[in-house]
Amino acid sequence: MNNYSFCVPTDIRFGKGQVACLATEIARFGKKVLMVYGGGSIKKTGLYDQIREVLGEYEVYELSGIEPNPKLSSVRAGAAICKEKGIEAILAVGGGSTIDASKHIACAAFYDGDPWDLVLDRSKAVKALPIFTVLTICATGSEMNPGAVISNEETKEKLEINSPILYPTLSVCDPTYMYTLPRRQTAAGTADIVSHILEQYFQPCDDAYITDRLSEAALKTCFKYGPIALECPENYEARANLMWTSSIALNHLLTFGKGGAWSVHPIEHVLSAYYDITHGEGLAILTPRWMRYVLNDETVHRFAMYARNVWDVDAADDREAALAGIEKTEKWFEEMGLPKTLGEVGIDDSCLDEMAKEAVRTSGISSRAYVKLTQSDVRKIYEMCL
Amino acid sequence: MNNYSFCVPTDIRFGKGQVACLATEIARFGKKVLMVYGGGSIKKTGLYDQIREVLGEYEVYELSGIEPNPKLSSVRAGAAICKEKGIEAILAVGGGSTIDASKHIACAAFYDGDPWDLVLDRSKAVKALPIFTVLTICATGSEMNPGAVISNEETKEKLEINSPILYPTLSVCDPTYMYTLPRRQTAAGTADIVSHILEQYFQPCDDAYITDRLSEAALKTCFKYGPIALECPENYEARANLMWTSSIALNHLLTFGKGGAWSVHPIEHVLSAYYDITHGEGLAILTPRWMRYVLNDETVHRFAMYARNVWDVDAADDREAALAGIEKTEKWFEEMGLPKTLGEVGIDDSCLDEMAKEAVRTSGISSRAYVKLTQSDVRKIYEMCL
Repeated sequence: MNNYSFCVPTDIRFGKGQVACLATEIARFGKKVLMVYGGGSIKKTGLYDQIREVLGEYEVYELSGIEPNPKLSSVRAGAAICKEKGIEAILAVGGGSTIDASKHIACAAFYDGDPWDLVLDRSKAVKALPIFTVLTICATGSEMNPGAVISNEETKEKLEINSPILYPTLSVCDPTYMYTLPRRQTAAGTADIVSHILEQYFQPCDDAYITDRLSEAALKTCFKYGPIALECPENYEARANLMWTSSIALNHLLTFGKGGAWSVHPIEHVLSAYYDITHGEGLAILTPRWMRYVLNDETVHRFAMYARNVWDVDAADDREAALAGIEKTEKWFEEMGLPKTLGEVGIDDSCLDEMAKEAVRTSGISSRAYVKLTQSDVRKIYEMCL
Repeated sequence: MNNYSFCVPTDIRFGKGQVACLATEIARFGKKVLMVYGGGSIKKTGLYDQIREVLGEYEVYELSGIEPNPKLSSVRAGAAICKEKGIEAILAVGGGSTIDASKHIACAAFYDGDPWDLVLDRSKAVKALPIFTVLTICATGSEMNPGAVISNEETKEKLEINSPILYPTLSVCDPTYMYTLPRRQTAAGTADIVSHILEQYFQPCDDAYITDRLSEAALKTCFKYGPIALECPENYEARANLMWTSSIALNHLLTFGKGGAWSVHPIEHVLSAYYDITHGEGLAILTPRWMRYVLNDETVHRFAMYARNVWDVDAADDREAALAGIEKTEKWFEEMGLPKTLGEVGIDDSCLDEMAKEAVRTSGISSRAYVKLTQSDVRKIYEMCL
């Protein structure tokens, strides 16, 4: 096991009705709150009214319209409100995009220059407003981690800002808020969770046994409950298990003692930066192809372990087991109704080289990934997905 | 899944050489440190000198001689030093006993009456000194949780104090510090970890799927690496996996969405309060007998699940599987060289009634345990162990 520092101070309030705690918890930091949310679905479901009632004693300002791949322009708008109104805490109501934008706003509020500077040079993010979240879709784990991914629409970059100051102070995780989630979002969100776990599981470290077993537990949970949540959107057990799994899938627990750069996420981030596709759908398309591409004599052991421990594959031969595991993964994405090709999400071969170059440039994929990939490798993986 | 609040702010510094961070980390709170430790084994191993060097810039006071079942008298002595010297932080160097005593001292330092009051009425513990730990034996998980068990030698009580203010601020978990651990302590410590996981696993809640799978991951880790650590004390992989598993085994992760009172721990706590036996040895004796005693038509499903998922038992019949799982657990304790009977640790039948009564009185075992147990049930379990 590699040396590791682990400190996750976020206070998780999990379960039905936990939103009520915000009436007193935010007040510990102040009464001026910026409420950040997305496209208005929370108004249809009644969650907006519920939260405004809980926030009855606060002075609430709003920033709505956060995009699925949150944009720098939204961050700029939020930071301006914080500075102008003297905001004391941010309340993000939504999924990873809303929370990520809120995190970026939280530190941009204390920065005089353009918020994009903080993404390009993390050392400039030194202070942040306290961030509270009410999670409405589980996927990114942003409710319990210090990272945020922001898209710069001018430069077509989709990059991460990551700092301990960006851990949410408190996150309300009420599984019932996901009852009204459209099928497609449930599927894409679960694909994102699965990908987070796989990115950490497939790393060249074999002695972090506990971490690998915990990852398998999380994977089994997604594979079991994803289809149930699709089929029965109001199944509390399914929503609850997926919701908590999404938080621990990306709060460093599943990379403890391991580390290494991710593979599929950077390849996907370029796709959604260029074509604004749904992140989880991009991951669903890429993951099985990436698996097939990197399966070799050195990686076959881990792929076989994955197949046996997660999918109960009982083939004695490692390669046979590995391939069966990849096939089961592919079938599961299909069962979740996720797209299988780039064509299905409107991407052709016109920018493959450019995107492959960008994926390598903006990540550790060529130097620190499980299997190091060059621009040409990434292009080949894109081609497998056409 | 039950509603749950989860907030574990402790900063874990895991791995070789992490102790160096104390030179700057404690200083954030002050320069006057009370260093608390046990019987002097850290002087033999050189860890004492190493830490004193790291603390070169601090004003260090010491409280040594913390007992295996830490006593109220030690807490009183520590609290007196804190008040007299104006201590600003506590550094516990040792295992659960030293850390538990340190936690109690940390809050007693701000309390004017006798420290035992804080155990009897937790609402009186309102403030605590920051607690730093250097873990030398993994077992209790105290390095990453807010609980402390203290023995009152006058009243023969062994009770817990538990408050969010008692989370250690930072814990150094360096697996190499366990290389010199005597076999018996390695065995007892691992038995304690196993028992913590089982106490949370065996609860009447079947829908916290992710939590059960995480528990099985932790159990498999203990069962795999316990014997390896016994056989090869300097096996880093074994020590490291056990050390991190001990922390997550009792930081609320494995009870998330579940809950309920524990069973074997309260039955054991009375044994060690009366006879001062090693906690982990008491647990090893009691656990398989408790399992057999509570196995019935209602519990057989979970015992069978345990057997299949943790021990790879493949019996189709639930009862057969359950019994095989219990037998494998028993054999594992035996393989670890742990005692099997109360006689082996010097306990006869003279106080069984009194102890059974005390176990019921001081715990939720008769009202909220997996299988509710009366005084007569507890006595029968003691008898099975004679």
